Amino acid sequence: MPEYPTALGAASKDTITLLGHDLANDVMGEVSFGELAFWLATQRRPTPGETRVFEAVLAALADHGYTPTAIISRLTHLSAPDSVQGALAAGLLAGGSRFLGVTEDCGRFLHDVLAAQEQLPTDDAGWDALALETVRAQREAKRFVPGLGHHVHKDGDPRTPRLMAIAAEEGVTGPHLALFAAIGRVHPEVLGKTLPLNGAGVCGAALADLGLPLELLRAFALLARTAGLIGQLAEELRHPVANDIFLSVDLNNRPVDPDPYVPESF
Amino acid sequence: MPEYPTALGAASKDTITLLGHDLANDVMGEVSFGELAFWLATQRRPTPGETRVFEAVLAALADHGYTPTAIISRLTHLSAPDSVQGALAAGLLAGGSRFLGVTEDCGRFLHDVLAAQEQLPTDDAGWDALALETVRAQREAKRFVPGLGHHVHKDGDPRTPRLMAIAAEEGVTGPHLALFAAIGRVHPEVLGKTLPLNGAGVCGAALADLGLPLELLRAFALLARTAGLIGQLAEELRHPVANDIFLSVDLNNRPVDPDPYVPESF
Amino acid sequence: MPEYPTALGAASKDTITLLGHDLANDVMGEVSFGELAFWLATQRRPTPGETRVFEAVLAALADHGYTPTAIISRLTHLSAPDSVQGALAAGLLAGGSRFLGVTEDCGRFLHDVLAAQEQLPTDDAGWDALALETVRAQREAKRFVPGLGHHVHKDGDPRTPRLMAIAAEEGVTGPHLALFAAIGRVHPEVLGKTLPLNGAGVCGAALADLGLPLELLRAFALLARTAGLIGQLAEELRHPVANDIFLSVDLNNRPVDPDPYVPESF
Amino acid sequence: MPEYPTALGAASKDTITLLGHDLANDVMGEVSFGELAFWLATQRRPTPGETRVFEAVLAALADHGYTPTAIISRLTHLSAPDSVQGALAAGLLAGGSRFLGVTEDCGRFLHDVLAAQEQLPTDDAGWDALALETVRAQREAKRFVPGLGHHVHKDGDPRTPRLMAIAAEEGVTGPHLALFAAIGRVHPEVLGKTLPLNGAGVCGAALADLGLPLELLRAFALLARTAGLIGQLAEELRHPVANDIFLSVDLNNRPVDPDPYVPESF
Repeated sequence: MPEYPTALGAASKDTITLLGHDLANDVMGEVSFGELAFWLATQRRPTPGETRVFEAVLAALADHGYTPTAIISRLTHLSAPDSVQGALAAGLLAGGSRFLGVTEDCGRFLHDVLAAQEQLPTDDAGWDALALETVRAQREAKRFVPGLGHHVHKDGDPRTPRLMAIAAEEGVTGPHLALFAAIGRVHPEVLGKTLPLNGAGVCGAALADLGLPLELLRAFALLARTAGLIGQLAEELRHPVANDIFLSVDLNNRPVDPDPYVPESF
Repeated sequence: MPEYPTALGAASKDTITLLGHDLANDVMGEVSFGELAFWLATQRRPTPGETRVFEAVLAALADHGYTPTAIISRLTHLSAPDSVQGALAAGLLAGGSRFLGVTEDCGRFLHDVLAAQEQLPTDDAGWDALALETVRAQREAKRFVPGLGHHVHKDGDPRTPRLMAIAAEEGVTGPHLALFAAIGRVHPEVLGKTLPLNGAGVCGAALADLGLPLELLRAFALLARTAGLIGQLAEELRHPVANDIFLSVDLNNRPVDPDPYVPESF
Repeated sequence: MPEYPTALGAASKDTITLLGHDLANDVMGEVSFGELAFWLATQRRPTPGETRVFEAVLAALADHGYTPTAIISRLTHLSAPDSVQGALAAGLLAGGSRFLGVTEDCGRFLHDVLAAQEQLPTDDAGWDALALETVRAQREAKRFVPGLGHHVHKDGDPRTPRLMAIAAEEGVTGPHLALFAAIGRVHPEVLGKTLPLNGAGVCGAALADLGLPLELLRAFALLARTAGLIGQLAEELRHPVANDIFLSVDLNNRPVDPDPYVPESF
Repeated sequence: MPEYPTALGAASKDTITLLGHDLANDVMGEVSFGELAFWLATQRRPTPGETRVFEAVLAALADHGYTPTAIISRLTHLSAPDSVQGALAAGLLAGGSRFLGVTEDCGRFLHDVLAAQEQLPTDDAGWDALALETVRAQREAKRFVPGLGHHVHKDGDPRTPRLMAIAAEEGVTGPHLALFAAIGRVHPEVLGKTLPLNGAGVCGAALADLGLPLELLRAFALLARTAGLIGQLAEELRHPVANDIFLSVDLNNRPVDPDPYVPESF
């Protein structure tokens, strides 16, 4: 008979533990939700400074207004109001490579650059040199630098300097943020124009510096977004827009003739 | 052209706001994630005491070990490792009426009892009288009292007194918790046996006392569970069990003859 | 060690069976997909006539243009193009009580009326009498008759007579369709106006007459819709509209002040 | 105001069309469900032979017993029995790269090889030469050949010759199946052992030969699986196993100490 080990929740008749601690007495009322989420993901308790940076990231990613995730959750609720879990799940399914992926892509990208170095830089000049080399290599490979550029905040994304400042205040700036900041300084020299370091990217850098698993960077964006989607559903319940969205599409449909699909011929 | 009002996230070229506040300067680094989730759901900022109770509820519901939600997320990750959002969404879809529903059911049940009173009790004797009447009515209708009973913690669920104590410390005990506590005191008189007030139930009572929308009580359980599922996936990545679970079922399948479905005849 | 019986798929080194039949030789190339879906759901092989009616229902429900399910699948694909399963799953999650629920509601409603009769009518006059009683009871209870009325096809839903004709041709008209047809004939006498019997409703009546499990009537609508959503995604890949839909909402957002939620007071 | 063109479903007061055809009169009762699914995906009506091959593929992929998709749907239903759409959606979310991905991977792989040829072979000897070159290149790159090998059907997957025979009977064998068959003939020469061409792989080759969009090959596997999952849920309703599966994991949990995650250091 197989056994299934776990360090997470466990219960016996009289006690409940979570991560080896008494849930009722040592976790409830003692550990904030952000701290607990970090702890669950890493099985180590974060410091107050780490928790503050982590919660700042979650705040940065929680809600961006009428994103596809928000529209989808509202439409799902319109159509299946009996299933709150379905409305949240459908919204999260839009948290894929394109809209929430930058956080993960940026964290992984910075990590890969760092992992390829024999020794990390020790001063700003060193970081600038590494950043220059990095941006040049991407440009030569005709690839974008993840986290660089924003379609709205063209002169700077206000979340970026703020998160960097919070990380610095808490003493948790690490090599991912250092490299990301350097990319912000040097990229105009290569690209010939100044692009903003975007908020999703700096969040990925910060999460990586916090030592969180790279495979789950997107998962933290999804956790933040779950809180945002609850906000969207709460607003939809009182000030509904989903039916208007649905009708704005349905009533503006235009029937066209079928366009038979022709596969590539050889 | 329809317009879509929202008080949640908004962005212009130089600013980002959330709930009317400057996201970078007034929310990031200033507002904990639990506080923000409460704020997003109600569009009002909770007090520190409300936040502490809310985060205690989230801690109580975050992870209960190998629940169906946890097993499902791990199996989905086994099968589709490229889609973290799919693994989280699939797990949340099991957060329905049976396993995560008690929180919502209990909050709604207490609310309905309270809403039917012309005047609420003002002392313990009054609450006990209302609780007695309530339990009797359920018994006569052959219905369970939501939140009463637990298949493991038969002598008491440790989360219940703890959450009541935290709510009392923070001065946010309201009529839902008062009635729930009274049900705990008086039900043996009606049912002839002593059952525990369970943790999922007390969480529903506390969320209702915090003034959160009843339609979304299940959503807060799902938010808590999202953090728990990230913990499950993080553990699965390093100490996988999903393939063993899959094989324990698949290798113990027993082929049987088809059993043709016969609908009810009239 | 528990065992898990199943009459569905099974495999050994040299054979694969499905429902007790050799998959390769007796199912592949011999059984149409609609027939197989029916067989899987009931563990009995349908007759050709039953299959034709079943497939006519699936055709009726496969795609209705820009429904919430279609919009959601397209938006999910826009946002997470790497996960086809996520785009389909998100669309199906909108297949709940409101948009796809009529099929199930109507089938169950007719069933409940039939199950309450000691003896079923044997001629049109008898069905009309039962239908009259049924519509009157709903009206007195201030409840709608499921399947009656349509916001677009006010003079008649073309799917309804067609499905009834196909069922009659195949000799599989049963009591659900008989009662539904009678409701169509007699309701003006009670309601004072003529409403169409809608397509979703007649599909529910037909599925119930085919002897399919009532708990899964919605599931067949979802199967039909899966084919429709693949069509939507295929069209989105070549003639994309999801980004326009997203922008039509996002660019027309109107920031408003927060509206603090005030729970019902007692 | 944007317009949203579509060739799929459209409705006016008196008519409903699908793909430009009268739904009630020209589709319902006239077009099988498999044929309709093909038509929706390509906007061209398949021939009877194409439909037969397509439906044989769907039959081959509909259900494989207690796969993760099946276990997940059953567990989701156990936990949230009120939401059939959630149980189906959760099961489909496990239809990702690993368990249902071979169909897509194999179709794409064969396509890429074919697209790189200036001219396609015209006889078996030519196909064998191309296959040999292809298997060698994969081996040198230390990559598997998609569709080659099966952990159970080591001496041959019975679906493979059967699907090839059906395609040949219907005259729709194309270059993907030709190359796949040649790989089956020549790979022992390179790999030093004989592996079976598996059923998921041959399905991918056949779908590609049918001219279906490569981006959606996985979607057809998911359509087939939707029918299978309805079968699983139907069986679960009458012969439930999900609670036993859940308990077999939960009761065999083994609490272990937390294992703090240590990120890679630089």
